[in-house]
Amino acid sequence: MYQIEIINTGAEIMMGFTLNTHHQWLAMKLLDLGYTIARQVSVPDEGKAIRSAVSEAMDRSDLVIVTGGLGPTSDDKTRDEISELLNRQLIYSQEVESHIRNCFSIRKRPMPESVLIQAWAPEDSEIIMNHHGTAPGLWIDTLVNEKNKSLVLLPGPPRELYPMFVDQVAPMIRAKLPLQSGAKLHLFNVVGLGESQIQERLEKGSLKPWIDKGLELGYCAGRGEVTVRLMATGGSANEIVDSASAEVRQKLGHTIFSESGESLESVVIQRLRSMKSSLAVAESCTGGFLGHRLTNVPGASEVFWGGFLVYSNAAKSKLAGVSPKTLDQFGAVSRETAIELAQGVKAAANADYAISITGIAGPGGGSTEKPVGLVYIGLATPDGVSVLERINTYDRETFKLITTQQALDLLRASISK
Amino acid sequence: MYQIEIINTGAEIMMGFTLNTHHQWLAMKLLDLGYTIARQVSVPDEGKAIRSAVSEAMDRSDLVIVTGGLGPTSDDKTRDEISELLNRQLIYSQEVESHIRNCFSIRKRPMPESVLIQAWAPEDSEIIMNHHGTAPGLWIDTLVNEKNKSLVLLPGPPRELYPMFVDQVAPMIRAKLPLQSGAKLHLFNVVGLGESQIQERLEKGSLKPWIDKGLELGYCAGRGEVTVRLMATGGSANEIVDSASAEVRQKLGHTIFSESGESLESVVIQRLRSMKSSLAVAESCTGGFLGHRLTNVPGASEVFWGGFLVYSNAAKSKLAGVSPKTLDQFGAVSRETAIELAQGVKAAANADYAISITGIAGPGGGSTEKPVGLVYIGLATPDGVSVLERINTYDRETFKLITTQQALDLLRASISK
Repeated sequence: MYQIEIINTGAEIMMGFTLNTHHQWLAMKLLDLGYTIARQVSVPDEGKAIRSAVSEAMDRSDLVIVTGGLGPTSDDKTRDEISELLNRQLIYSQEVESHIRNCFSIRKRPMPESVLIQAWAPEDSEIIMNHHGTAPGLWIDTLVNEKNKSLVLLPGPPRELYPMFVDQVAPMIRAKLPLQSGAKLHLFNVVGLGESQIQERLEKGSLKPWIDKGLELGYCAGRGEVTVRLMATGGSANEIVDSASAEVRQKLGHTIFSESGESLESVVIQRLRSMKSSLAVAESCTGGFLGHRLTNVPGASEVFWGGFLVYSNAAKSKLAGVSPKTLDQFGAVSRETAIELAQGVKAAANADYAISITGIAGPGGGSTEKPVGLVYIGLATPDGVSVLERINTYDRETFKLITTQQALDLLRASISK
Repeated sequence: MYQIEIINTGAEIMMGFTLNTHHQWLAMKLLDLGYTIARQVSVPDEGKAIRSAVSEAMDRSDLVIVTGGLGPTSDDKTRDEISELLNRQLIYSQEVESHIRNCFSIRKRPMPESVLIQAWAPEDSEIIMNHHGTAPGLWIDTLVNEKNKSLVLLPGPPRELYPMFVDQVAPMIRAKLPLQSGAKLHLFNVVGLGESQIQERLEKGSLKPWIDKGLELGYCAGRGEVTVRLMATGGSANEIVDSASAEVRQKLGHTIFSESGESLESVVIQRLRSMKSSLAVAESCTGGFLGHRLTNVPGASEVFWGGFLVYSNAAKSKLAGVSPKTLDQFGAVSRETAIELAQGVKAAANADYAISITGIAGPGGGSTEKPVGLVYIGLATPDGVSVLERINTYDRETFKLITTQQALDLLRASISK
């Protein structure tokens, strides 16, 4: 087994201004590839701190991945420190310079000369071009105490780091640190059941034999869904995970919305595309978050017509044609308003499906009869309209997340029949 | 200055199933007290890994805080490892046993005998009772190379760790590691300038004298904005940071949107509230993300009317009244369409201000004339309509973030005149 160590640099991490999400992200990606991280270290972007952390890690580990400190400002010290530590002089890359100049010219922005510092790299580094930014990643192979060690320097911004790791670094790791015996991992994305409900269904009986044979079961709850993780190592890893997966499918049924890591919105959009059906939305308390999620899926434009943000009562009447009488008699947060919203936007869009959401996100606006968190989700289909009532008592952003998750799942159930 | 190190233990952190939020939380709490963390380390809950991390940290640092691994299950190894490392035998605490028994009897749950393992602690530990769980924290003073060192072991669950740290551990740290002089910190949130542009404005000349006197300048770019951090320690920390802050205000001017950590959407909503003005939006390529951001701000309902999600061309015509001729002649992504969208939604909402966004988020849909990333942001005010053209070549979600940031900043500039 390889010893892998992650070093995250940055004053903003050390002072708590930024949450270190790189560690988790890299850990998950490496686990997918079959590797685990033996140690993770964070240090401020100070020369001495970076250098001692890297030096100690190189002694201990086969692969050391460092994030951050490759940018153009004075607190970006990784490049220089590594060059001194490894005793390799910095070499200027014409290719990186062209790339940096190109980045600025595409965006029609003036280029400060200082950014060209990112074209310097320690001698014999393998340069990993940055397709989403200017600073390249660097892969450096070296010998420490006569052992082969790899040091990988990656840029800090997630939108640069993530695609660079997935597209360029992961294949390099696979090639340079080949795995002898496999680990098999399978994930299920589940919606509509809590972690302990899932655990009860799975661990009572039917999965026991596989757990005894070495199956590791894990649960990770988050973003209004639960990821169920099946893992095994060794010679019969495949058989164990495959057989256990069949059991999981039977026990969890239609609550499984993906086995390939897709988002719920992506599953819904793809299903609608294959049906050549269209979708419109009318959002009140979620304020556009449902539309945002749907339009995060490439190709959404084939399916998603658009819709209304009916945040105010005036908008509900004016845009979706909710009758003032309904608003008056039942209130903006009511089954009746949800129905009229869904019907109104479906008609305006001439769409096959329409979702409406009206509720009380809080913190204010609640009453005894209609507490904070109360929400009505309307679904209009070619066959008619239905309404879901839920009480989602959370902070504002979690409320939006959970509510749109319920809305997407309501639609999913209707179109996957 | 004291050297402080944090060690977080747990397989779930190392495999990426859990995000390490302890580090950030402790960093913020320590900074409030005037301390910074020199290094943070995560290791799995394996005996050897915990022991070597603690041993190395004790060599380097004055205070080492370890979280996790104090519970009653087989993967809770911290207590035993520390006892062996420090060569101190485990002593049984009657007081902790009573506390544990009491915890179970209050909750009317049967107590497994195994939980009493938590009553053992290395000799001469100061026991920190756990008011929100069973496992106590431990404070251990020791000598390493004739220097005083403190090792603090804290339980992993946040609802136990947080109150224990605030109520019990923080006062102990203050008493045992007294601070000679304070630290002063000031943050600026800046939009519309890149990290290196800001650095050029600040570090060329005017801030030099303060940097020479010990001012630490830091930059953190993210979410379409940059946070500029000014910090100093020592007797003249206040004077240095205050004087430098005045310089920063002069150099960065209106690009500073907050000095109290507010979001850009919050600044905009508050300004509109104080003006008693209303706002409507028409979003195409951002799909609802602007509405989402605006409605994340509590009290947005006093300002935000709602608007249109005009994702399809049909929606642009039908909802915002963009003329088919305009769409035909100039295209959906054009200055002209942005103007008609902004005017259309402003009129429908009878609002004081309206923002429209139309562009090409990608990855598909671009052409030589209109590349992926091209976006037009329209702003209708009581005085007329203006349009901003930008090329935001990013992935889909970053495109939405940067674009809505530009839209909010365009509105901010108009209402803060």
